[in-house]
Amino acid sequence: MTWEILSIIGTVAFAISGAIVAMEEEYDILGVYILGIVTAFGGGAIRNLLIGVPVSALWDQGMLFHIALFAMTVIYLFPQKMLPHWQRWGNFFDALGLSAFAIQGALYAAKMGHPLSAVIVAAVLTGSGGGIIRDLLAGRKPLVLRAEIYAVWAILAGLAVGIGAAHSPIRLYILFMIVAALRILSYTYNWKLPNKSLKAKAS
Amino acid sequence: MTWEILSIIGTVAFAISGAIVAMEEEYDILGVYILGIVTAFGGGAIRNLLIGVPVSALWDQGMLFHIALFAMTVIYLFPQKMLPHWQRWGNFFDALGLSAFAIQGALYAAKMGHPLSAVIVAAVLTGSGGGIIRDLLAGRKPLVLRAEIYAVWAILAGLAVGIGAAHSPIRLYILFMIVAALRILSYTYNWKLPNKSLKAKAS
Amino acid sequence: MTWEILSIIGTVAFAISGAIVAMEEEYDILGVYILGIVTAFGGGAIRNLLIGVPVSALWDQGMLFHIALFAMTVIYLFPQKMLPHWQRWGNFFDALGLSAFAIQGALYAAKMGHPLSAVIVAAVLTGSGGGIIRDLLAGRKPLVLRAEIYAVWAILAGLAVGIGAAHSPIRLYILFMIVAALRILSYTYNWKLPNKSLKAKAS
Repeated sequence: MTWEILSIIGTVAFAISGAIVAMEEEYDILGVYILGIVTAFGGGAIRNLLIGVPVSALWDQGMLFHIALFAMTVIYLFPQKMLPHWQRWGNFFDALGLSAFAIQGALYAAKMGHPLSAVIVAAVLTGSGGGIIRDLLAGRKPLVLRAEIYAVWAILAGLAVGIGAAHSPIRLYILFMIVAALRILSYTYNWKLPNKSLKAKAS
Repeated sequence: MTWEILSIIGTVAFAISGAIVAMEEEYDILGVYILGIVTAFGGGAIRNLLIGVPVSALWDQGMLFHIALFAMTVIYLFPQKMLPHWQRWGNFFDALGLSAFAIQGALYAAKMGHPLSAVIVAAVLTGSGGGIIRDLLAGRKPLVLRAEIYAVWAILAGLAVGIGAAHSPIRLYILFMIVAALRILSYTYNWKLPNKSLKAKAS
Repeated sequence: MTWEILSIIGTVAFAISGAIVAMEEEYDILGVYILGIVTAFGGGAIRNLLIGVPVSALWDQGMLFHIALFAMTVIYLFPQKMLPHWQRWGNFFDALGLSAFAIQGALYAAKMGHPLSAVIVAAVLTGSGGGIIRDLLAGRKPLVLRAEIYAVWAILAGLAVGIGAAHSPIRLYILFMIVAALRILSYTYNWKLPNKSLKAKAS
């Protein structure tokens, strides 16, 4: 049950974030739905691939499609006065998707008895897959690779699951909310990690 | 049999469209073959993933390789007086690939008893996969997301299959030709969908 | 055993090449690890997909993670006086990954009894997958499609395996070293293939 709810949250959140990016990039109405669907189900397909579920299992989730389509339609018809805040909303839904899918990836790897390092990598790759597909298709550098703190929170999700700190449904929901909240805080207050540049040092 | 013929049409058409894009981007001779092969088999791999066929089944299709290689060689040696029309030819072969793979995706999802919405999404993702890979590798925005009518025709293919309007081989071939013809008409006469831009409205 | 050693060489080499590209693109410390991991395991995931191994088998390779993480840390802490040569080092590790994964792809396709053309295509797609993912995520055109000789050496690996010239472990290691060395020579001395440009001829 927890698993299904995380799937729904992750898929719908990525669908909305893809739709918002498509509107920012001035795609037509169908481009908005397409980028939303590709982000949501591309992210889900990468998750399925990485955790060993057949990708074609996606088609069984008819309800999920309808929720995602409905959510994108609401976003498309959103009142215009909210528009200046949409980049923030895009990041908000991306954070929900990241958190939900990262926890799923970590849960899968932990259940299979993989070592902690594999659980963490599974969390990062599963959580960031949807956003990577969205950003590549929109011609942007993937959010996970740009200068904000992003993957750290997926690592945290992997760590919490990997050390067994989130074994009950209620703890998983709390972990989901913590990870999403930390991601939201990190772009709101523009937290950064140190970077080491070849160019800067070479010059 | 219909399924195999659609596979051959789709694979060869995407191989040629990849080769043409590679020549437009001024890649060397090997780049032309590589982008053609990656487009054809990347599109086929995405189709296989989405419809639950092992991706490694691609290697059994030795004849398909030879047809694709032969077709790309013909395109590479094409008389130069045809060159000014090659972007149109690229779109032509892309339309054939889109139509063939969209119908395959829809047929699979319908046969598995999935709801109509899933059949339509399967048609769109399966049909556009090859072109998405080609355009990403060439550093272009995917055709399916740019401002022309593209995905509408894959949706039409999904709809026709999903409501059971194309249950015989002859009807499937007619559907294939209608979908490809509509796509060709839409870029020839530059049909467009309305778009809703965040930037335009925010300013 | 040979297979495992080629896996380790390919995965670690792609991890390092991803980390170097990330430092060239001025990503932060986590971006360096993420691009390294995504390159290494994305390349491995594409290899697994293409040769019919479940992608989730990646998570069993705990030791491989640790080696890759250790190698990326060493690269990250590398003395600054080596920096001007890092593009060359990036190409060096990419060549190792290309050679190792191309041979694996060819071995798989040959073992399954596929025709020579399929063995060659398997070598090219398996060998170039990791580099394609790395370059797409870094916003670059894939190395395999740019104007240097790259895929030729993967084709050579496929040919050697396909005609049965590399049936013993020692011959496979020699083939690995020859393919990697030829790739290194081709960028060191800037070997090129002829190219046929649409734009140049159309004008």
